Amino acid sequence: MASKRVAVIGASGYGGLQTLRLLQGHPGLEVSFLGGERSSGKRWSELTPFLPLPGDPVVQAPDPDAIAAAADLAVLSLPNGLASRLVPPLLERGVKVVDLSADYRYSSLAQWKEVYASEAREFPRSDEALCAEAVYGLVEWEQERLAAARLVAAPGCFPTASLLALTPLLKQGLIETGGIVIDAKTGTSGGGRAAKEHLLLAEASEGVAPYGVVGHRHTSEIEQLCSRAAGSSIQLQFTPHLIPMVRGLLATVYGRMRDPGLTAEDITTVLRAAYRHAPCVDVLPVGTYPSTKWVRQTNRALLSVQVDPRTGQLIVLSAIDNMVKGQAGQGVQCLNLMAGLPAETGLPLLPFYP
Amino acid sequence: MASKRVAVIGASGYGGLQTLRLLQGHPGLEVSFLGGERSSGKRWSELTPFLPLPGDPVVQAPDPDAIAAAADLAVLSLPNGLASRLVPPLLERGVKVVDLSADYRYSSLAQWKEVYASEAREFPRSDEALCAEAVYGLVEWEQERLAAARLVAAPGCFPTASLLALTPLLKQGLIETGGIVIDAKTGTSGGGRAAKEHLLLAEASEGVAPYGVVGHRHTSEIEQLCSRAAGSSIQLQFTPHLIPMVRGLLATVYGRMRDPGLTAEDITTVLRAAYRHAPCVDVLPVGTYPSTKWVRQTNRALLSVQVDPRTGQLIVLSAIDNMVKGQAGQGVQCLNLMAGLPAETGLPLLPFYP
Amino acid sequence: MASKRVAVIGASGYGGLQTLRLLQGHPGLEVSFLGGERSSGKRWSELTPFLPLPGDPVVQAPDPDAIAAAADLAVLSLPNGLASRLVPPLLERGVKVVDLSADYRYSSLAQWKEVYASEAREFPRSDEALCAEAVYGLVEWEQERLAAARLVAAPGCFPTASLLALTPLLKQGLIETGGIVIDAKTGTSGGGRAAKEHLLLAEASEGVAPYGVVGHRHTSEIEQLCSRAAGSSIQLQFTPHLIPMVRGLLATVYGRMRDPGLTAEDITTVLRAAYRHAPCVDVLPVGTYPSTKWVRQTNRALLSVQVDPRTGQLIVLSAIDNMVKGQAGQGVQCLNLMAGLPAETGLPLLPFYP
Amino acid sequence: MASKRVAVIGASGYGGLQTLRLLQGHPGLEVSFLGGERSSGKRWSELTPFLPLPGDPVVQAPDPDAIAAAADLAVLSLPNGLASRLVPPLLERGVKVVDLSADYRYSSLAQWKEVYASEAREFPRSDEALCAEAVYGLVEWEQERLAAARLVAAPGCFPTASLLALTPLLKQGLIETGGIVIDAKTGTSGGGRAAKEHLLLAEASEGVAPYGVVGHRHTSEIEQLCSRAAGSSIQLQFTPHLIPMVRGLLATVYGRMRDPGLTAEDITTVLRAAYRHAPCVDVLPVGTYPSTKWVRQTNRALLSVQVDPRTGQLIVLSAIDNMVKGQAGQGVQCLNLMAGLPAETGLPLLPFYP
Repeated sequence: MASKRVAVIGASGYGGLQTLRLLQGHPGLEVSFLGGERSSGKRWSELTPFLPLPGDPVVQAPDPDAIAAAADLAVLSLPNGLASRLVPPLLERGVKVVDLSADYRYSSLAQWKEVYASEAREFPRSDEALCAEAVYGLVEWEQERLAAARLVAAPGCFPTASLLALTPLLKQGLIETGGIVIDAKTGTSGGGRAAKEHLLLAEASEGVAPYGVVGHRHTSEIEQLCSRAAGSSIQLQFTPHLIPMVRGLLATVYGRMRDPGLTAEDITTVLRAAYRHAPCVDVLPVGTYPSTKWVRQTNRALLSVQVDPRTGQLIVLSAIDNMVKGQAGQGVQCLNLMAGLPAETGLPLLPFYP
Repeated sequence: MASKRVAVIGASGYGGLQTLRLLQGHPGLEVSFLGGERSSGKRWSELTPFLPLPGDPVVQAPDPDAIAAAADLAVLSLPNGLASRLVPPLLERGVKVVDLSADYRYSSLAQWKEVYASEAREFPRSDEALCAEAVYGLVEWEQERLAAARLVAAPGCFPTASLLALTPLLKQGLIETGGIVIDAKTGTSGGGRAAKEHLLLAEASEGVAPYGVVGHRHTSEIEQLCSRAAGSSIQLQFTPHLIPMVRGLLATVYGRMRDPGLTAEDITTVLRAAYRHAPCVDVLPVGTYPSTKWVRQTNRALLSVQVDPRTGQLIVLSAIDNMVKGQAGQGVQCLNLMAGLPAETGLPLLPFYP
Repeated sequence: MASKRVAVIGASGYGGLQTLRLLQGHPGLEVSFLGGERSSGKRWSELTPFLPLPGDPVVQAPDPDAIAAAADLAVLSLPNGLASRLVPPLLERGVKVVDLSADYRYSSLAQWKEVYASEAREFPRSDEALCAEAVYGLVEWEQERLAAARLVAAPGCFPTASLLALTPLLKQGLIETGGIVIDAKTGTSGGGRAAKEHLLLAEASEGVAPYGVVGHRHTSEIEQLCSRAAGSSIQLQFTPHLIPMVRGLLATVYGRMRDPGLTAEDITTVLRAAYRHAPCVDVLPVGTYPSTKWVRQTNRALLSVQVDPRTGQLIVLSAIDNMVKGQAGQGVQCLNLMAGLPAETGLPLLPFYP
Repeated sequence: MASKRVAVIGASGYGGLQTLRLLQGHPGLEVSFLGGERSSGKRWSELTPFLPLPGDPVVQAPDPDAIAAAADLAVLSLPNGLASRLVPPLLERGVKVVDLSADYRYSSLAQWKEVYASEAREFPRSDEALCAEAVYGLVEWEQERLAAARLVAAPGCFPTASLLALTPLLKQGLIETGGIVIDAKTGTSGGGRAAKEHLLLAEASEGVAPYGVVGHRHTSEIEQLCSRAAGSSIQLQFTPHLIPMVRGLLATVYGRMRDPGLTAEDITTVLRAAYRHAPCVDVLPVGTYPSTKWVRQTNRALLSVQVDPRTGQLIVLSAIDNMVKGQAGQGVQCLNLMAGLPAETGLPLLPFYP
């Protein structure tokens, strides 16, 4: 079977770079178009001497006609708001899209405008229908809809780790819907490749700090999906922390058990059943806790469960690579499904340790 | 006034090194005895070329008579269990002791034996009276008793950060006693200087991982002090995480507010009042969150409060240097009080940033 | 064609781990035996939960008969000296060996005994003939002999980076044989996985330090091969430095040009010609200098040349991953050749950046 | 004696921050003016919550009259070129100046214009006389002239480490003037606080890379001073490398001995004699090599010598903190001398390790 042709738009940012790397040697997808705004017109090897691409292509302006002529599928790795300008013309031209931004993660455009208010001012939008149509690309829970989708909103990195832990627990009613706390830790690559003072090595190393305490944008994204899983409205606490490392994301998720008699082994069994057909998600034995290093540069998610019978708390540890399973790798999973391939096709699952 | 003479026992471990560094140039305390087991008989400059000491002393075996002849006060930086062998003979000889280990942190010896079971097997103890007598050295809350103490148990690093946040809230009944979650992050120096595989740079860098999930020993230490502050028994959730950095400790503390109408500004006012006479503790303005880097190599603790009116959760961020305010610096505060000096004498409060 | 069966001995050290990882999914080699001393009898998943292996094998004692029954080829990742005990019985049983230690890197056993004096005392040896027979596995310069070898000594990490830079220059007489300086920088994984104080994150991070100044063991290994390339005896300066990072090795090589009229472009042309059939070695354009990050977790070596016409100095930058091209990856290149495959078969050449 | 009043201009960059921190608690100097361009008009605590200053001053525009009204001395931590606009009016108003930029490091303005060509285009200059008058602030070698200076050019970080090693060797003719190689390694703070992509933690960590190979600007600065010390023109090789750490600078200096019979002990004796009155410079015993971590956040320089009798090479390791002895600390040494105080007054010499 011929490979599907993929356009990567926003190629020199971290999302684009990861996507390009993951697609090298992919058995069913090939990169046929490199798009970028600032880097348009430049030869790839000058921009990125460390990642040689076949034919050393020139980066092109992201023109919808040119993309449609060259590609069946497109991955957009663009700033929030900007993606919504490119998605409609691409869909009209028959190009299926995986969007790595937040633009189509909310089924309600109004909610997006509320949460991403500054972007909404800069990029006026009226594509409610596309918001409603877009499939939220949490692969392990949307496999069938993704296979048929034209437009996929790849989940944020924090929502991915959090929802892999919470979705099966909420669907089965194992924890209370109130009082959930997600304390998350992530490397600095989550802030992107654009230079910012607080992400300098001199500033970010040798320290750990919280940010976006109460009200971080991913809170509403997590709540939307948790509410769907539970069948009732959920409000929870989400606190991200910046860790002095490049990649990796750990969500430490706290919830109160409905049945305090359940053990960690019981919950582990439930999670393993939920993910038994998911080759990218593993549930560790009770007492083995994941390091994000164990999943670095892979598309694997590692979960581990512990229970405190004294307090009735359930704790789930969820570790991913924020730029692979938390972004570009999950995007490739979506592409795979849209191309009729198994979701995990061509994706690395084993780390180079240490 | 003549300086008090201080013996530092366990000089070449991290606790000892920090204590020695902090006492260089101290206006009221001077190091008069260097003790160590493994390093006994060696000249200091051979062990530690990077920290020249006046006179380049030889490390001595920690003999109680020799210590008592040389020193008024002693800081013990020894493995758990071992300190309990040295403390009684030192007290008998009139040497006041600040113990950096966990040996005297519980007022009940029975509880210590339960929590530190393996140490209890190796070091049989029957010094219940000393356990009851020892003052828990959380300086900001025990100033008067510390000034009169013979034996001080310096708090653990996690308890220090956690209790600075929780004590005023519990004393004033601002949060519920159930459902408290402490999600803590610390650098690898907390594991000590003895070589361990999981603390190698190659293993610990570029990853974040939890450990001791449910049942970490510091849980019971925190609960003992929280229960005292609240006046009722408290059980809480404490989860430490290992962060790829040398020093620094952040406790992210979650509690449910009793009065959901209180704002972050209200709680900030309460905390500022509680610490208005504490030069080592600062409460940041609402919306400014501390990095552990802001307190690195200082004896300062930084607190910051946020409130989520939707969920009724109160979040306190508490940042310290795990080896200064979390260990040796707090030990020096205790020494200062025992020597009749203001607690903060000679202690650094400003960081070298970055 | 059936895959060749490979035994990996010393599986849980870094050399073993890298080898195992590289052989997962390899199209012509399969791991058929896991050997280890300390880990013997343990199930792999308990030792290494982060690298699941098919069938979750039990680690076995490295018995020559058992290895010969299970494998055609063996990779030994053992401490210096110990390998020399296992190599003769394996060769006798028809198992071809790639040894990652230094035991067979010198064609003269006497020289090995001089350089590795303490190991020579612990492990008495008289296998001069094997020392003379062993092929030094610098793949790009020994391709033919490696294809026919029974015993291969994989080069050290510093020699690999240094010799890729120096060999073509010395063979063609482009630099003087005196006055060569190699200033090398490497991550801490080069010190192995066994716990050592100076490799703790708390000790090794936030600092750079030299070690083995004048007389580091790799000096003699580099000199042996440089002398062969030049056809005359070479003595040079080699200074390694420990860098606060996990992996990566950069050799900054200084030599005096014989013809001061040559430009950096000229030398680049020479190096490109020398490596035109070497898919794992790339020479960057003049003015582009490699970061070790560009080759991390790949088997690629990146060279870059600069010339100072004022001083007549030639500077070559040579960047590799110390554990892949500098150790296990080069070992797999050797295995490939011994198995009749192209050297680069199954080896990663593109990094996951950042 | 009353404290001298010091203006710090460019307060929120790294040079300014270090200067401010070093002057807190200084017994003879006090900060009386905070100047900055971008931060002008802002309250200090909003800019820098981690470094509280007495009175929480407002940052002011760097107006010469205002500075002269408030201060006796000024430290300028401004971009190259910009300092030359402020220095003349300050000197005219009687304010003595320590300039941390490169603007007055060359006694010839013409050479500055050649080396700093782009700055020279942006900032036209004709202050040849000031260039000739300015004293190069390498404290240990210019103590007397500094005490009488109006204008001091604080040396660059690489020149400081390199010249502390080379000056005594060249003055005494112990090494040849040709063939000197300086291979230097520095943390990312040397690149300043302004956000640049290549200094992001995600880019700079887990890799080591050279930059400015052949022709880095500090080459000419080092050569100017080496030539003065030797009494003849010197051209040398200088190669800086970026290391994944915040602070610290190591220069590994290679030179050929004139008398190959000298031992490392001999040279150590010479260096110790040269620095016997320099409390900020220590020469380590032969065989003990410094880590930059040993001098972190101190104004200490550590030197160590090794000799290779086979090759006739002398190797000097020189470790400093790039922002203290390599910048702001050396600036404070200069201020001290200009204020009639011993050079080391108020400067930290002992590290907090680890």
